[in-house]
Amino acid sequence: MAEIKLSELAQMLGGTLEGDGERIVRGAATLEAAQADQVSFLANKRYERHVAETRAAAVLVATDYNGAVASGSALIRCDDPYFAFRQAMVALHGFRKPHFDGIDPRADVHETARLAEGVRVAAFVSIGPGCEIGAGTSLYPGVCIGPDTRIGRDCTLYSNVTIYEKCVLGDRVTIHASSSIGHDGFGYATHGTPPVHEKIPQAGWVELEDDVEIGACCAIDRATMGATIVGAGTKFSNLVAIGHGTHLGKHCLLVAQAGLAGSVMVGDYCVFAGQTGIVGHISIGDGVRVAAKSGVTSDVPAGLEIGGAPAVPLPEARRTWMSLSRLPQMRSAIKKLTRELAAIKKKLGMVDSDHDADETERP
Amino acid sequence: MAEIKLSELAQMLGGTLEGDGERIVRGAATLEAAQADQVSFLANKRYERHVAETRAAAVLVATDYNGAVASGSALIRCDDPYFAFRQAMVALHGFRKPHFDGIDPRADVHETARLAEGVRVAAFVSIGPGCEIGAGTSLYPGVCIGPDTRIGRDCTLYSNVTIYEKCVLGDRVTIHASSSIGHDGFGYATHGTPPVHEKIPQAGWVELEDDVEIGACCAIDRATMGATIVGAGTKFSNLVAIGHGTHLGKHCLLVAQAGLAGSVMVGDYCVFAGQTGIVGHISIGDGVRVAAKSGVTSDVPAGLEIGGAPAVPLPEARRTWMSLSRLPQMRSAIKKLTRELAAIKKKLGMVDSDHDADETERP
Amino acid sequence: MAEIKLSELAQMLGGTLEGDGERIVRGAATLEAAQADQVSFLANKRYERHVAETRAAAVLVATDYNGAVASGSALIRCDDPYFAFRQAMVALHGFRKPHFDGIDPRADVHETARLAEGVRVAAFVSIGPGCEIGAGTSLYPGVCIGPDTRIGRDCTLYSNVTIYEKCVLGDRVTIHASSSIGHDGFGYATHGTPPVHEKIPQAGWVELEDDVEIGACCAIDRATMGATIVGAGTKFSNLVAIGHGTHLGKHCLLVAQAGLAGSVMVGDYCVFAGQTGIVGHISIGDGVRVAAKSGVTSDVPAGLEIGGAPAVPLPEARRTWMSLSRLPQMRSAIKKLTRELAAIKKKLGMVDSDHDADETERP
Repeated sequence: MAEIKLSELAQMLGGTLEGDGERIVRGAATLEAAQADQVSFLANKRYERHVAETRAAAVLVATDYNGAVASGSALIRCDDPYFAFRQAMVALHGFRKPHFDGIDPRADVHETARLAEGVRVAAFVSIGPGCEIGAGTSLYPGVCIGPDTRIGRDCTLYSNVTIYEKCVLGDRVTIHASSSIGHDGFGYATHGTPPVHEKIPQAGWVELEDDVEIGACCAIDRATMGATIVGAGTKFSNLVAIGHGTHLGKHCLLVAQAGLAGSVMVGDYCVFAGQTGIVGHISIGDGVRVAAKSGVTSDVPAGLEIGGAPAVPLPEARRTWMSLSRLPQMRSAIKKLTRELAAIKKKLGMVDSDHDADETERP
Repeated sequence: MAEIKLSELAQMLGGTLEGDGERIVRGAATLEAAQADQVSFLANKRYERHVAETRAAAVLVATDYNGAVASGSALIRCDDPYFAFRQAMVALHGFRKPHFDGIDPRADVHETARLAEGVRVAAFVSIGPGCEIGAGTSLYPGVCIGPDTRIGRDCTLYSNVTIYEKCVLGDRVTIHASSSIGHDGFGYATHGTPPVHEKIPQAGWVELEDDVEIGACCAIDRATMGATIVGAGTKFSNLVAIGHGTHLGKHCLLVAQAGLAGSVMVGDYCVFAGQTGIVGHISIGDGVRVAAKSGVTSDVPAGLEIGGAPAVPLPEARRTWMSLSRLPQMRSAIKKLTRELAAIKKKLGMVDSDHDADETERP
Repeated sequence: MAEIKLSELAQMLGGTLEGDGERIVRGAATLEAAQADQVSFLANKRYERHVAETRAAAVLVATDYNGAVASGSALIRCDDPYFAFRQAMVALHGFRKPHFDGIDPRADVHETARLAEGVRVAAFVSIGPGCEIGAGTSLYPGVCIGPDTRIGRDCTLYSNVTIYEKCVLGDRVTIHASSSIGHDGFGYATHGTPPVHEKIPQAGWVELEDDVEIGACCAIDRATMGATIVGAGTKFSNLVAIGHGTHLGKHCLLVAQAGLAGSVMVGDYCVFAGQTGIVGHISIGDGVRVAAKSGVTSDVPAGLEIGGAPAVPLPEARRTWMSLSRLPQMRSAIKKLTRELAAIKKKLGMVDSDHDADETERP
């Protein structure tokens, strides 16, 4: 952990310090947990009340912050306090470094695999024939890589990750524990009498472009033919499933337990919130945002925010959710209207043509 | 990759060739990606427009196909073009073969385990005491098999698959990376003051019958007593969860992220679409199809298609989804009707008996 | 498997025997599957009819059970038959014991790791520098533990489990195959032109308190700062996702495929049914029960049962689900009312002010 003066930190973050620049910080923490030698931040209004009570040496806030401040705390005003917090985290804590170096003799590296300088291979890693691994890449214990897979520079594959044959990873790709990349897609031709699901060879591969990060226990199918693609800079949380032949654009975010079926074409900068599901063979434009738990069943034009299952534009989904909670009241109102209308018709001597259209009975 | 003349391919597929039989193909590809030495297929109407523009040497189409054809492409008319495509994939690409052979000396094979002829065991595989492994079965690096588990012939277990003790796999079973078979079911008796969830020993096992295929990162609980069963020919996609004591019939399909709780009895040829959830202790008849994201809460008779959460027959679910999008309009209409009725009653000199039944307020 | 006389078993369970105390049982089974030397139980009314037909030597029932009994079966009346069944399972079947002992020479144990007496480490286990492992703990083949992680006494980590650095496990913690504990949380600051998701170092850790059990293929994020916490006695089924910085209380139950986002504060004795999703940064009080497939979007006070997406109190959710199935009928009723009202207004010579408020059209 680094030690940094507040004056240096403010300069590093491009922020304006209000407070004692000589004070030293050794880490970052939440507003509630921060100690006197730690820096904290306010990026979510929900936590604003904690700024007045924090013990943090300094709090990173927006340039226009005008709330209360704890008496012992400095402020560092920043254009983008969340990014400033990220920069402070990098300066104070840094990123994980592998605890192993070189090629462990207990690894199983095929003689035809080509490993660049500075590749780290831990014990119990298996690297198949014909693989290429770029400089600076680290393979944690238990990683298994099938034949002819190419991995770029400075990638990190954590323990028990499996990559099947012929896949392609760019540079700086990170994959967390127990994820599987390039297993067979769910492809069967149902045939015969009685019918049997006959497996279709999955002859394609998976391509993860530069700076992709994949969470733990994710599953990305190889394509039947050609590639399943995850575009540069796209990030997955955990337990995400991607079907065969799907193409994800660049800089998308997939939150935990999202699932996309096969042959989906997704643009750049899309966000799939937690537990969303996307049917196969549809197109999703750039910048689409899908609300948590939504089910997307048809093409979505660029820029739309959608929600619900089946998903509709978000304002419409919100109106529906709002109305949903009124449904029992609506039923009562309809019953009352029906009763009153009958009374009026009777009074007016009008004959009711269809008595049995009671909405409370199923057809 | 094989090389096949179009005339031979047509014969192999039982199809009728329209075009140059001497032309050679070396692989299969999608209509859009196919090169001049590749064959493609049309099984989904959605892609019909691509047939006119493909560079493929030939396109597998239905016998009655009458759409446009690219000038350079032959047609092969087939009764079942998707199955024909599957057959072409098998002929041209074939299935994955293990890149290792024999018993790797770095595997941990217990002395009491019995391995048949031709079993392939990669490095870092662990096989517990009393296991039996049938001829032709391949265990990829990192597979762990608990004591007394029996695995049939020609099975393939990919990297980092775990099978607990006493499980039974039939022949030609395939399990993809990071799946777990036979871990403890979720069984606790909550007891005491204050209450504690006391673990119930899970003394049963899991049985995967012949030709079962399990995707990546799936979890199939062992039964508390007796077996959790997956019937012959049933296929799982990824991230599927099966609870303890559930019996799945033969030739079912479970799409990604489907989950069945414990003690569910499922017939043959059922389809569980993506992200479906099934409560415990219910029965689902043969041939039931559950739409994506549905939640099934009670017994389902054979042959039914269901959808929604809680799930209802699919036509009913569709009517509900359709109506859902009209909910806000329905609310407006009810308000308007209420207003107008009041006006009429006033005009007719009728007294309103309950003023406060406004549907917009919660009770 | 033990052999126990029914008289001894009844005494052991604190139950009252009705039948032949000399009879011997060798195991437990379901009512339908039980053989003449097995004991069974009735805890779910659904299976009551099987008591009359079981071949079990004895059935554990509630003290006030007054249903039919098979002629060959004894009864053991118990205050809590499900807990009695659990005790019988423990007596007759016991818990799994590791099939390996000592430190396997093929394990990769860092020289600075401290392992207490009686720790079992299987082949292909990797233990990083600075780890501490308590007495009686078992690490199955393929377990990978990052640096400086502390694991208590009598824990069991099954095959291919990964634990990242600096995590803390209490005593008697159990983790099933392929789960990942302490991988990076989903934290990025989106910044720059064009915007890039800049990774935030995840400098925290995960703490699993005493008696926690985690199912297979679960993913628990490490916190950005401080700890992600799972309270003592809490149990997870499979494929559960927990976001960074979330604190789960004691004795909670998380059913398969439940997902909680980050920074959620959960009380004790909460139940999250299958496929529930919880948004980040909310508080959930003690004893809250969330119905299957629900989506929780805001704070929940202690003791509430909730359901639906967005989740509402369960009785309200049930009323809504009931009304949902009537939606198409409600639409028809509204149309009919609108028609009839128009007829009445016409008859009364009233003018319709807005013709176009037809609820069947979208706005």
